[in-house]
Amino acid sequence: MSNKQPLINSDDELSSDDDVIIIDKAKSSEITQNASTSDHRPIAVNGDYQNNEDVPPLLPIDIEPETAAPSSFESIGHAGNINSNANSEPIFHVRSRTAAALAGVPQEKQAQYESLDYDVCENKLFQDEQLSHLRDRFSLRTHFIRWIIFILIGIITAVIACTIDIVIEALSELKYNFLKSSVDENVPVNESGGDLALPYLWWLLFSALPVAIGAGMVTYIEPITAGSGIPQVKSYLNGVKIPRIVRIKTLAVKAIGVITSVVGGLAGGKEGPMIHAGAVVAAGISQGKSTTFVKDFRIFKAFRDDHEKRDFVLGGAAAGVTAAFGAPIGGMLFSLEEAASFWNQNLIWRTLIASIISSFTLNIVLSAYHGVSALTFTGLFNLGKFDHPLTFEYFELPLFMLLGVMGGLLGAAWNSLNTHINGFRKRFVPWRAGKVCEAVLVAILGVTLACVMIYYINDCRPLGNDPTIHPVQLFCEDNEYNAVAALWFQTPEATVRALFHDPPGSHKILTLAVFTVVYYFLSCTTFGLNVSLGVFIPTALVGAAWGRLVAMLLFYIFPQAQFLHPGKYALIGAAANLGGVLRMTISLSVILMETTGVETSFFFPLIIALISAKWVGDYFNDGIYDTVIEVNHVPMLPWEPLPQYKGLTAEAILSKPVVCIKLRDRAHYIYKVLQKCNHNGFPVVDDVQDDRRSEGRVCGIILRSQLIVILLKSLYVENQRFWQPETTIQTFRDVYPRYPSISSVRPLDRKTNYTVDLSMFMNPSPVRVNTYDSVPRIFNIFRALGLRHLLVINSENRIEGIITRRDFIYK
Amino acid sequence: MSNKQPLINSDDELSSDDDVIIIDKAKSSEITQNASTSDHRPIAVNGDYQNNEDVPPLLPIDIEPETAAPSSFESIGHAGNINSNANSEPIFHVRSRTAAALAGVPQEKQAQYESLDYDVCENKLFQDEQLSHLRDRFSLRTHFIRWIIFILIGIITAVIACTIDIVIEALSELKYNFLKSSVDENVPVNESGGDLALPYLWWLLFSALPVAIGAGMVTYIEPITAGSGIPQVKSYLNGVKIPRIVRIKTLAVKAIGVITSVVGGLAGGKEGPMIHAGAVVAAGISQGKSTTFVKDFRIFKAFRDDHEKRDFVLGGAAAGVTAAFGAPIGGMLFSLEEAASFWNQNLIWRTLIASIISSFTLNIVLSAYHGVSALTFTGLFNLGKFDHPLTFEYFELPLFMLLGVMGGLLGAAWNSLNTHINGFRKRFVPWRAGKVCEAVLVAILGVTLACVMIYYINDCRPLGNDPTIHPVQLFCEDNEYNAVAALWFQTPEATVRALFHDPPGSHKILTLAVFTVVYYFLSCTTFGLNVSLGVFIPTALVGAAWGRLVAMLLFYIFPQAQFLHPGKYALIGAAANLGGVLRMTISLSVILMETTGVETSFFFPLIIALISAKWVGDYFNDGIYDTVIEVNHVPMLPWEPLPQYKGLTAEAILSKPVVCIKLRDRAHYIYKVLQKCNHNGFPVVDDVQDDRRSEGRVCGIILRSQLIVILLKSLYVENQRFWQPETTIQTFRDVYPRYPSISSVRPLDRKTNYTVDLSMFMNPSPVRVNTYDSVPRIFNIFRALGLRHLLVINSENRIEGIITRRDFIYK
Repeated sequence: MSNKQPLINSDDELSSDDDVIIIDKAKSSEITQNASTSDHRPIAVNGDYQNNEDVPPLLPIDIEPETAAPSSFESIGHAGNINSNANSEPIFHVRSRTAAALAGVPQEKQAQYESLDYDVCENKLFQDEQLSHLRDRFSLRTHFIRWIIFILIGIITAVIACTIDIVIEALSELKYNFLKSSVDENVPVNESGGDLALPYLWWLLFSALPVAIGAGMVTYIEPITAGSGIPQVKSYLNGVKIPRIVRIKTLAVKAIGVITSVVGGLAGGKEGPMIHAGAVVAAGISQGKSTTFVKDFRIFKAFRDDHEKRDFVLGGAAAGVTAAFGAPIGGMLFSLEEAASFWNQNLIWRTLIASIISSFTLNIVLSAYHGVSALTFTGLFNLGKFDHPLTFEYFELPLFMLLGVMGGLLGAAWNSLNTHINGFRKRFVPWRAGKVCEAVLVAILGVTLACVMIYYINDCRPLGNDPTIHPVQLFCEDNEYNAVAALWFQTPEATVRALFHDPPGSHKILTLAVFTVVYYFLSCTTFGLNVSLGVFIPTALVGAAWGRLVAMLLFYIFPQAQFLHPGKYALIGAAANLGGVLRMTISLSVILMETTGVETSFFFPLIIALISAKWVGDYFNDGIYDTVIEVNHVPMLPWEPLPQYKGLTAEAILSKPVVCIKLRDRAHYIYKVLQKCNHNGFPVVDDVQDDRRSEGRVCGIILRSQLIVILLKSLYVENQRFWQPETTIQTFRDVYPRYPSISSVRPLDRKTNYTVDLSMFMNPSPVRVNTYDSVPRIFNIFRALGLRHLLVINSENRIEGIITRRDFIYK
Repeated sequence: MSNKQPLINSDDELSSDDDVIIIDKAKSSEITQNASTSDHRPIAVNGDYQNNEDVPPLLPIDIEPETAAPSSFESIGHAGNINSNANSEPIFHVRSRTAAALAGVPQEKQAQYESLDYDVCENKLFQDEQLSHLRDRFSLRTHFIRWIIFILIGIITAVIACTIDIVIEALSELKYNFLKSSVDENVPVNESGGDLALPYLWWLLFSALPVAIGAGMVTYIEPITAGSGIPQVKSYLNGVKIPRIVRIKTLAVKAIGVITSVVGGLAGGKEGPMIHAGAVVAAGISQGKSTTFVKDFRIFKAFRDDHEKRDFVLGGAAAGVTAAFGAPIGGMLFSLEEAASFWNQNLIWRTLIASIISSFTLNIVLSAYHGVSALTFTGLFNLGKFDHPLTFEYFELPLFMLLGVMGGLLGAAWNSLNTHINGFRKRFVPWRAGKVCEAVLVAILGVTLACVMIYYINDCRPLGNDPTIHPVQLFCEDNEYNAVAALWFQTPEATVRALFHDPPGSHKILTLAVFTVVYYFLSCTTFGLNVSLGVFIPTALVGAAWGRLVAMLLFYIFPQAQFLHPGKYALIGAAANLGGVLRMTISLSVILMETTGVETSFFFPLIIALISAKWVGDYFNDGIYDTVIEVNHVPMLPWEPLPQYKGLTAEAILSKPVVCIKLRDRAHYIYKVLQKCNHNGFPVVDDVQDDRRSEGRVCGIILRSQLIVILLKSLYVENQRFWQPETTIQTFRDVYPRYPSISSVRPLDRKTNYTVDLSMFMNPSPVRVNTYDSVPRIFNIFRALGLRHLLVINSENRIEGIITRRDFIYK
């Protein structure tokens, strides 16, 4: 380009005033806040602030060192400028609408997450690599390796899921067998006044102990593993980097956490953690290195960027869903539903392969474990296959819709209640030990409620009718078992299966009614504890319980209605309740279909219930995952621009003034900029008059991480002949994903006027929009291309502002 | 914007020389070809051409009037410029790389298709509408209506599919019953020398007559309905507008065409046409008007643009697949696989709803027709449900993979052979009557081959074993039937069902071997005839036949191998053959799963066979649909940029110089530009010195169709007060989708110097890239945003060139 002549020569004698850009008073009067402070301390007001030595460091202190450097959103304070003061140290005057709007949100919460870079930085180094690969067969090899990785992801995820599954099953078997024999010993047959105290204490022990272990590990070793993991994976797929979410340590803690919690009998499922496990596996394998073990296997180096990594995590999440539910298409659709804006056919295809491999591995391992030949292990339908095709009559459709409405109402109430409980919890249980105690208390509460139910409700059923594994006689006649105990003496997943498949008349109406109410509140209290547990199974369980209850009530009123198959209504109830709580309609419907093996013709009732539930629920609040995400202040991009953005233009949401860097700029200036402001991307400008950088023409964008690498490796113009031959794109990839912080760079002596030429490192093709472009339009561009920074320019290609993820959410 | 001051005032006295732009000699020396001529006639060379009155009109004459105006690709000659001559009529000097590269392709072929505009033109009128809708509840209403339309699409598509299905079934029943009784009459039982002549003649009549009707309708009424319709729908979803593809007349001809062809016994299926029907229904309903009936219902006016229409067609295609196969998830995935770059969650969701509604409607109608209660009609699995779960052993997996390889080889050979046959056909059978005769001849050939097979192969089987509907005794003992006749005396779809579900030992090896060979070549000859027929069923049939054959051969060699279930191998064979011919792996696998009701555990073998077939096939050639698309020169965008584009920048593929229009330009100039060049988009420039338009700053883009409307309605600055109050975006939508041609505009007297101010009409936010941006990058942008025009600018925001769909394909 003809106008890309650098305006500064490296041998220019730069005066100290060159660090300073004078901004006009109109702009500076708006400057009120320094975004890089974590405590709202105004550093510079109206351009006349004098920097003092006793001002504390600008980096937030309460952020862990490894995430400190890139830890803030670029948009929080993308708005920075440099002003004159006597020390000639640049001070940043920031006018950030975002920060103002986020006034109520603690800064450390905002600083927790950052954006992923889905946009490939096609700088000169990248193009060199591309060209060199055109010659060799690299491209085909990369393609092949990518497939191998997706297959590995499928296999390993399934193996981990199987292990969790088998361990939970084996331990639960032990626990409930022991409890059963304890009950049988202590409650003599045919005597109604048996003593339940000892079994109760045993039960307490076997619940509290695993839960304490699990909660302790989660709380003290890796707090990010608390909860289901799906909100975190969802955020990651949406393009938000969450620290420590895809580490091997996280995986280990999560696996042990979920085993102990489920065995402990908490009202939760293993599905969410399994999906999270799939994501971790994907991220781990694809990068060929582990931060936990500080080990770099030096493989798969070409995949070390956000773009590739996210594609793999997509496959991992799909494999996780598949392994959790035995539903390969559901798994693929789950990934699709969560990250639908970045798809292409190859990615769909690879994701499906990961899912199918995962499903096949699951089949092999579980068939082998259960000693079933010919790969026909039906436990893949982990909610139990319906043997006879479910049928329905036309007049049942309105009934299904009513069930859906009910699911929506109950789900919305559940979400709201859960959010309130978690808010309460956050305020009143801030200490770690308290969190562990709380989990143990909830476990004890569950056991106690179960015992009370078993003790007071007399629901005896003849043996042999119900395929329950642990029939407890308990106060019943010979050849009878206690139906209440049957509901409680197994994992929640097994109870869902029982509710779906038990023959009509397996429970009393009272039993199910009380069970529904107890489990509804119990699960609501459980989700949000500091343990690794998913919300899918308890939600399905509550839904199945009240669905079955509705069928039983209706049958009680209309005893001639043969269509009131309780299992069918349990399934519809589960769908409705899941729709009401989770609101993930597409993948949920397919998952339910695949896990229960219902026919395509029963798809319609399922969808009717799910849609009604979703729409009713959406009227009141968001799905539980979205709620968790919102409570954690994760900057998730919605699917459509928020309604309040309609009619606005880029001008209304952009952050300005912008901190720019010249195409050839002084290393010292860059060092100071990095030190003083924590933006993650800086527009590179050219055609600059003196140092009025913000008035230059945009010619690219450079990331903070790249600048730090440049400074660390001293990639200056003056010593170009030393580093140029061996500097490739791999130099930058090597530090991915945990870039060093600016504090690791040796302070530059400002006497040595080194120059950095960014033309080789910057991304020369940033996506640019105009100030008068409408927000819905730029939102679509931002989302479709998976951007991190969007530059707003005027008709002369001069920078007007910058737009990042936050700007679409918080204003 | 401060620099948007119009440079021409309306009251300027413009000299006649103002029409002319002097371009520098360096550029003009490159100018060699006028792209707007259809016959490569050089009109202007090196800027010294004198325009004569006897030069024929520049518009291609052989294009139908209704598609003439916007009928060429914008990129063919996006390169135009205006040069000086004595008449002061602008002449366009075009240097088009595309046209040069397309030298071998007939111009009328190129001119047949144009791009869809997926990018919303957010001009001032649009924004006004948006703002006015912010006030009323329009947005919610639009949302609601959109849902209603998707539901309607599902219902109507299913009803049409059912009708086709039922009519085919009823007529085939009549036909084959008659033939059976004719055979029974003419071939006396237990006498081996019966006379087949009369049944043969009847059979000929009942085949040739419907085929002649069908081929005649297709050939004489609507030639676009020939073939399966899937390639056309695929192209449409990819963003290529194909004339007359979504009309009601097309639907009617297609429906009758497919009924007659299938009843006539041609080797084809009804699935492709049903998918096409879904697309037509979607386009028809969503627009609320019909061109065929010249009727505008004045509803759904808000959806009259390419963006909305394509979304609906997506849903229609999904509903069509669902109706054809009874596979709602497969239907959704089909749409997904074909248009994966434009997805968002809401669209997936609406598409799934259309599919499910379609599946439900199908269920209701077919259950009612067949008198089955409780909506359990299993005919939804239109390839027949496998009653027992299919199982497999580990060591069968390599075998499945081998079958896949075989499918890939056979499929690639089929595609290649078919392409050659069609090329031959195109060259030697150009006349309409010839095409009809050819179809009848192929029908006669099929019947003759069948009769020869039945006559010479003696394959008698005991009755009652095989659930065939028309057991023909024919040369067999009592209580026996002829297995060869059983294969032929039904629709191909029924034969696929029979091959999947007939018990072992239903056919001789010789029978199946001959049948496979005959049907392979018969189907290869049939696809490409001028009849409405899909390729799915014959391909599945051939695959099922050789799959079953493999199982029988293996069982013959290893009689103790109990795992060799012939139905299972028929299914795998069908999957392999479909994979080899169609290469649509994702949706195919799900469709096969859904139509046969196999368990999730059998997904893995299916995928193994499909992948192997696809990869082997891809080594040799493209899938049959892609081949058809390529043969027709449809500018389909691939999923990834073509490999030869790697390492190139925008500079290498852009078309230039570009015909620009000033923000305020003279109406006469615009009229002349539209008359002389057939581009579909013109960059709007500002900041123009004199009339050097191509050096102005880009401030928007305006479409040909918009300019024509402006001229037609005389929306000039001078009479602004008359039209401004009543001109809304609806003025432009009303003429969608068949814009008038420039010839319908009354020639402007060049004395009257009317001015057009484009600032209200143009799209002010065209997507722009830089000359040095890499092609893979701009390809991603182009594809992800579904663009039609991409402006290439330099760092000063001045136009450098334009990139359209063609530029990514043909250079």
